[in-house]
Amino acid sequence: MKALFQYNWLIREDWYQWCEDVEEEELLLVRTGGVGGILHTLFHIIDVEWSWIRLLQGKPDFQESFEEYKSLQKVRELDAKFRVEVEEFVRNWDLSMESNLLHDSLPDGRTDIFTWGEVMRHVIAHEIHHIGQISVWAREIGKKPVSANFIRREIIPLPEQSK
Amino acid sequence: MKALFQYNWLIREDWYQWCEDVEEEELLLVRTGGVGGILHTLFHIIDVEWSWIRLLQGKPDFQESFEEYKSLQKVRELDAKFRVEVEEFVRNWDLSMESNLLHDSLPDGRTDIFTWGEVMRHVIAHEIHHIGQISVWAREIGKKPVSANFIRREIIPLPEQSK
Repeated sequence: MKALFQYNWLIREDWYQWCEDVEEEELLLVRTGGVGGILHTLFHIIDVEWSWIRLLQGKPDFQESFEEYKSLQKVRELDAKFRVEVEEFVRNWDLSMESNLLHDSLPDGRTDIFTWGEVMRHVIAHEIHHIGQISVWAREIGKKPVSANFIRREIIPLPEQSK
Repeated sequence: MKALFQYNWLIREDWYQWCEDVEEEELLLVRTGGVGGILHTLFHIIDVEWSWIRLLQGKPDFQESFEEYKSLQKVRELDAKFRVEVEEFVRNWDLSMESNLLHDSLPDGRTDIFTWGEVMRHVIAHEIHHIGQISVWAREIGKKPVSANFIRREIIPLPEQSK
């Protein structure tokens, strides 16, 4: 679980660096699929990750709109702000929390019940899926996308004796 | 680990069903990004998943090309054929296998060393990333993509008392 969050954060950082070499106009351009743009997608990933972690902790959710974060710097700042809390939650994750239950009230009065384990996996898959969309848009701009490889990022260190 | 493989297989099945309502020409069309097409991507996902599982088992790899599998039916048949072995491997996965080492010989004579745990996560992330690409192409065709949600798929069952 922790390793895939780590992976997502590394990939996200690589995309921020990738964005530095791209015109802001391209980052903001409304595109086909997903939430419709590169920077908007990064904002959405940050928003969704943080919102679920807030929900699991029984804390109020984030209600801002992308309209207020339409620059790479603003998105990175928001990420840095949220990351503190998300990282702490992930760092303290242990197997005993897998089957904790989240009761999520829906606007129509019904309540969804999720295990914490499925929420965490939902958050992981959510980011990887959206990053895949950005990789297509990167090629549309004519730029090589960030590698999506989990291997060769030293996320899971090799045992000492094999180095 | 097992739950995310399960997720990928469910999503993949949904995409096969989605493909049934799309002209084969659209499925084969060469597109921007990724490996360059919807059916080619599904083939690539199957190929990569199986190849890594074969490597972990020290068995020979798959060497076919997409040229031989350019129809939905052929891709599904290949998936069904490979799935037997992949599912068995995933079913028998346990925590003690996380730090097993894979020595992967490269064409240039060097050897990469990976833990089995990182290879498994690489395979999981690989599929989710490529499915994200297909979701953009789906919108280009004007069709709603398959939901990428992990939640609401009953992959991780709720405890009995909360139902």
